[in-house]
Amino acid sequence: MKVIEISNASVDKAGHKHFMSKEIAEQPTVLQGALSHYISPNADAVTLPESGIDFAKIERMTMVACGTAYYACMVAKYWFEQVARMPVEIDVASEFRYREPPVTAGTAALFVSQSGETADTLAALRYMKGKADTILSIVNVETSTIARESDLALPILAGAEIGVASTKAFTCQLTTLAILAIEAARARDHLTDAEVSENLSRLRALPGVINLALGIEDKCKTIARQLAEARDILFLGRGAMYPLAHEGALKLKEISYIHAEAYASGELKHGPIALVDENVPIIVMAPRDSLFEKTVSNMQEVMARGGKVLLITDKQGAAEAGDGVWDTIIMPEIDAFLAPILYAVPAQLLAYHTAIAKGTDVDQPRNLAKSVTVE
Amino acid sequence: MKVIEISNASVDKAGHKHFMSKEIAEQPTVLQGALSHYISPNADAVTLPESGIDFAKIERMTMVACGTAYYACMVAKYWFEQVARMPVEIDVASEFRYREPPVTAGTAALFVSQSGETADTLAALRYMKGKADTILSIVNVETSTIARESDLALPILAGAEIGVASTKAFTCQLTTLAILAIEAARARDHLTDAEVSENLSRLRALPGVINLALGIEDKCKTIARQLAEARDILFLGRGAMYPLAHEGALKLKEISYIHAEAYASGELKHGPIALVDENVPIIVMAPRDSLFEKTVSNMQEVMARGGKVLLITDKQGAAEAGDGVWDTIIMPEIDAFLAPILYAVPAQLLAYHTAIAKGTDVDQPRNLAKSVTVE
Repeated sequence: MKVIEISNASVDKAGHKHFMSKEIAEQPTVLQGALSHYISPNADAVTLPESGIDFAKIERMTMVACGTAYYACMVAKYWFEQVARMPVEIDVASEFRYREPPVTAGTAALFVSQSGETADTLAALRYMKGKADTILSIVNVETSTIARESDLALPILAGAEIGVASTKAFTCQLTTLAILAIEAARARDHLTDAEVSENLSRLRALPGVINLALGIEDKCKTIARQLAEARDILFLGRGAMYPLAHEGALKLKEISYIHAEAYASGELKHGPIALVDENVPIIVMAPRDSLFEKTVSNMQEVMARGGKVLLITDKQGAAEAGDGVWDTIIMPEIDAFLAPILYAVPAQLLAYHTAIAKGTDVDQPRNLAKSVTVE
Repeated sequence: MKVIEISNASVDKAGHKHFMSKEIAEQPTVLQGALSHYISPNADAVTLPESGIDFAKIERMTMVACGTAYYACMVAKYWFEQVARMPVEIDVASEFRYREPPVTAGTAALFVSQSGETADTLAALRYMKGKADTILSIVNVETSTIARESDLALPILAGAEIGVASTKAFTCQLTTLAILAIEAARARDHLTDAEVSENLSRLRALPGVINLALGIEDKCKTIARQLAEARDILFLGRGAMYPLAHEGALKLKEISYIHAEAYASGELKHGPIALVDENVPIIVMAPRDSLFEKTVSNMQEVMARGGKVLLITDKQGAAEAGDGVWDTIIMPEIDAFLAPILYAVPAQLLAYHTAIAKGTDVDQPRNLAKSVTVE
């Protein structure tokens, strides 16, 4: 494992009580940096390093990671399939490396790891050498083993992340993956130059929207006091919000030790709805998008069974479906494609303030290490 | 939805307290029937109905289902990839139908549904019409809509399943999928005739092994009394045991209302291990196979953090790794390929007896319907 030199300034808590809080607050700034790095100044093109990779020649992609980085891959699967029409297979690294999957010609492999040293992810990368046509990685540490062993390694430029629960690294991973999906869609003729430019302009506006979203912190703090009383919590989402439900549940597990679990909204009635009673808060992540009505219908089934719903949505969503819910968090409006990046903010703030309310060690939760460099 | 005529005899509880208990006990008999249906008398060939489907021409397969049937697909992914070297993508139907995945030439689609009427699964099937080269389904009700709309529908021959929590339908789905994987491997020249015959002979022996496994019932009853005190439980597995961990967790959720969650053993240290303390029993499903040591190493991390482990393994596994665990369930020895079918038995019996100990309504759990024919 590499020892990275970090200046004192960058590991300072900058007035925050915890690194996690500082790192959540830093997101507009670090995202701004990543966007400037990967998008041309007039937002008309993606600026990747010269690598000779032709996305038009890639038939399918396999994305592998662990933990939070895996949920970033889950979001990216929706993105690549939707905008670039590229089939994507995702797997957690510890399963992928041992199931020895068959790999067909035209497959590219992409690995996501904050540290770039995650043992299972590195082993999965090495399995794919000689099998995949191209090996891409998305890392925070540019000098890491995973970066060095890739054909193209894209840094997420999040800066040092000290809190064990990943926050800014997750949104920077997502942003880098979104940019890559747009570039793939352009190369494969699924987006015109005008559409690329429109998408990149929206991305450039993201730090401002995230900054606005950080205004929900007081609301999250109030809700967290009640979440801290819960022993079990369910997170629900559909489409690209389903991975965000996973990330929300993982954050809560990691730092508040509350047993939170994510479900695809549509799977709820195939079993887990039996858990629902007035003691299990259900957190529904649902911007007012094309899947909104379906999610709301699942949410209403939960409410009909006594479930206590926290709806995280935008103004229009709250107006349409906010009746009878326990509480609502109103997010800024955003294009559906970018919503998963924005909705990471309530996932992070709810977990952070619930942990504070419970008095757990936010930056160093029990049993966990920042980088998992053993199997 | 079809109304099926069922004779009185078949809906009788046959001396059992619940349909679920009867249906668990019936497994050796119904599996015997399914095996006789799909395997030639001298166990040298798979006998599928004439359909013109050539597995050698299928490049990849997409498997879609909901709930327990989805976990059957998860197991089948390991099987098809391992023995037939056919890449398999799996998804839950409610996500698949709305993400509108790109489908490449040479793709076959396979849908699994007990009732054959599951609304999301049917919608997913219809999405694949005209996109997939072949549409296969695996159903219990042969006259169902999903069966009628498939190029080839394979009945699982489980007989009427009345308990809401699926038991014999799951093992019959798995058995049918195992037979299909073996046939695909033969057609693709990844198994010789002798190897096919050896695998089919082992399958023919399965009802006897399951019958033997039902002998763990008293042990499960004793353990269940303590599980019933738990509010949260984790299930761990690797490889094809990972889906079984999911099935074990789902069964417990459905009928005992305990918040059980499954994790791939290797993912534990990427977050959920923070949940581990002496109040959360951890159920580890680990036959003594090639992944055993890796799983045991994850199990020992859990024990080092005060976790109370129930190890479900075979005699050799218990001898090698049983020291210091809370309790052990010893399963009969079985070939690694068939282990997922056998390990459904402890998943079912633990859930059943935990629900009995809690006094919940086993056959009609709250909030759940047997067939989900709405979205």
